[in-house]
Amino acid sequence: MPAPLPVAALDDAGRLACLRLIRSENVGPVTFRELINHYGGAHEALAALPEIAQRAGRRRPLRICPAARAEAELIAAQKLDALPLFTIEPGYPAALAHLSVPPPLIYVKGRRELLQQDAVAVVGARNASAAGLAMARLLAKRCGEAGYVVVSGLARGIDGAAHEATLATGTIAVLAGGIDFVYPPENAALQARLGEEGCLVTEMPPGFQPRGQDFPRRNRIISGLSLGVVVIEAARRSGSLITAHAAAEQGREVMAVPGHPLDARSEGPNSLLKKPGVTMITSAADILEVLEPMRGRVGSAGADIAREEAAVWPRDSAETTIPVADEEKPAEASRIQAAQGSASPAPRPAVSQVDATEAVLAVLGPAPATLDEVARATGLGVRDVRVALLELSLAGRVEQHGGQLVSARPSTDD
Amino acid sequence: MPAPLPVAALDDAGRLACLRLIRSENVGPVTFRELINHYGGAHEALAALPEIAQRAGRRRPLRICPAARAEAELIAAQKLDALPLFTIEPGYPAALAHLSVPPPLIYVKGRRELLQQDAVAVVGARNASAAGLAMARLLAKRCGEAGYVVVSGLARGIDGAAHEATLATGTIAVLAGGIDFVYPPENAALQARLGEEGCLVTEMPPGFQPRGQDFPRRNRIISGLSLGVVVIEAARRSGSLITAHAAAEQGREVMAVPGHPLDARSEGPNSLLKKPGVTMITSAADILEVLEPMRGRVGSAGADIAREEAAVWPRDSAETTIPVADEEKPAEASRIQAAQGSASPAPRPAVSQVDATEAVLAVLGPAPATLDEVARATGLGVRDVRVALLELSLAGRVEQHGGQLVSARPSTDD
Repeated sequence: MPAPLPVAALDDAGRLACLRLIRSENVGPVTFRELINHYGGAHEALAALPEIAQRAGRRRPLRICPAARAEAELIAAQKLDALPLFTIEPGYPAALAHLSVPPPLIYVKGRRELLQQDAVAVVGARNASAAGLAMARLLAKRCGEAGYVVVSGLARGIDGAAHEATLATGTIAVLAGGIDFVYPPENAALQARLGEEGCLVTEMPPGFQPRGQDFPRRNRIISGLSLGVVVIEAARRSGSLITAHAAAEQGREVMAVPGHPLDARSEGPNSLLKKPGVTMITSAADILEVLEPMRGRVGSAGADIAREEAAVWPRDSAETTIPVADEEKPAEASRIQAAQGSASPAPRPAVSQVDATEAVLAVLGPAPATLDEVARATGLGVRDVRVALLELSLAGRVEQHGGQLVSARPSTDD
Repeated sequence: MPAPLPVAALDDAGRLACLRLIRSENVGPVTFRELINHYGGAHEALAALPEIAQRAGRRRPLRICPAARAEAELIAAQKLDALPLFTIEPGYPAALAHLSVPPPLIYVKGRRELLQQDAVAVVGARNASAAGLAMARLLAKRCGEAGYVVVSGLARGIDGAAHEATLATGTIAVLAGGIDFVYPPENAALQARLGEEGCLVTEMPPGFQPRGQDFPRRNRIISGLSLGVVVIEAARRSGSLITAHAAAEQGREVMAVPGHPLDARSEGPNSLLKKPGVTMITSAADILEVLEPMRGRVGSAGADIAREEAAVWPRDSAETTIPVADEEKPAEASRIQAAQGSASPAPRPAVSQVDATEAVLAVLGPAPATLDEVARATGLGVRDVRVALLELSLAGRVEQHGGQLVSARPSTDD
């Protein structure tokens, strides 16, 4: 059996294997982590993929990303000076790694040391008012002066103002498309500057043109990189609110700047401020007061911020929901074991894994059930259930939702 | 011994005696209540005044309001169509009667039936913005349509807008001066209309010209008449915030409309909204949601709103303090017993009251002590302590503070 993946940066072959794994069919962030943990490395997981999927009853072979395609992606990134960073590498941002489902890979361009600092997100409306823009500049600048990196989404309005005000102190823009995809066109020059003086981050491959659903997905990284999110002016249904809700789900602080109720741009922040646990911000001091107790704690094990599973708001109170795309959510909010150097090859299960997988599938229906319920219903241990779910996920036969919930997927394509 | 004061309206002689009592030296609202309760009626208390004060060691005679002066005040009020209402009369507003220290007498002009309805106060900045004025009109109008009387302070700006928007449904203006004192001059016409179509209320005698300290004192009546107070635009140090703090102390709901932090007029409401228990208002529905559960409950015994002693905010968090003028606060938040028809002449104390009074005075110093502490220190019963404090108050030798606190007063004038 091979040794566990090193905590040090991956070599070229390791990087290629990780990328191929991520880009293969039915491998989402959770499956990626489970595969690495169970097989001890990307090479081994990649080699095992066809067999695992087949074991779970998949007839058509799994589409595995060809080495050439993964190589081409890495070369394209290199040409753009974009560095790929895998969850299991030491340079991966600690705050992001604490998410229950961190993006397995991000591309980073510019001052990547900014990813190691405590950060706060400042986001808001594209059609911001003059007062809103002034507030964004003021708050972002003061946070930067206090030593926080300011994260935002490079949108027109509030986002752009927050980036511009913190180019000198440190700012990170998270993109919904590839690192070379210029969007919005108004901010082309700012995007170029951020790639040099600040930092650009995306989980998408070079050249990727974002679709509608990629923006909420991007927003989850904005909040994930940050100790907290400050919302300045936002409509009731807006990306900024999605970022705020993501922050709440991730256990990060949610802050909002109030506005006059007769201004539609105040609806977003004011509606947030009516929720429990959201802090009203009227000056930078308010932000610093919220963040100061968490300072420097994001990287430590069991950090206070790592509590994504604790739902801050009941589901039905959320005015916006965060599309979870085609990805699963994990059972635990722990960082990939391999990153701590503790991964080891999975021991052979006591019972036949084929039987276990069939047993798990048999108790699953279209209504989501918890991992514990599945374990009770099958009489299997939680570990065996997780292995079974890994196989069934790869086979495209189950769907894993947030909060350790799982349901059967109607078999369509195989 | 005379019968207890009737719950029905006072006759002319009873009204005159009550007024003389209130206008006599060292008789504040608490002393007034204690006197009525101990002596069974205003006539009896008035007759006993000189002796009680003297018993507590006062050398110079107490200045008792001459009958002619009280008569002149009542005649002046009558000429203005202003009706005097004493706490012990049935027409006295129930919400106000639930205060721990209700004003013993208010003058009322106009539709006094409005005083029997559930009310909400809408207050705010004199130099309000156009948006603030629009908000005041909108919220007040909707509250009026929902059946609530709107109370305010007749100031320029928000107050005036709230009154104007609710002349049709019912509105009460509380004045800091006499009912005939026109203030502010800009609102002279509105004041006149309110005296006919709405209702004017003041605790001051006709012709009284308000001083600075009378405005915070007036604000306490605005909140006292209401189930809750809505603040729309207010500077950090403003009368509106004093009203909000009074409401919190009186156990009434505090609500505020947020505003943009770069507008100084938002500082008041935004600072309120950072406090626990303050509800953010962005629409009239928010107000109705807060008030609806309390509807019709204000007049009932033990109503939820009667909890003035429960401090909502710690003292040091209050940005403004409410001057308590030269008046005391009572030991209990109960309505005058006489109003329930249960008053009876005080039984003679078991120990010599002169000794008791001396004992109480002996243990009091300049630092405030609680009633219980005084009782423990003297070995007297709480009832005897209260009688002693009544005498010492009349003699001007003790000062009664909020929260059952009492301290010795340096003897100066007698």
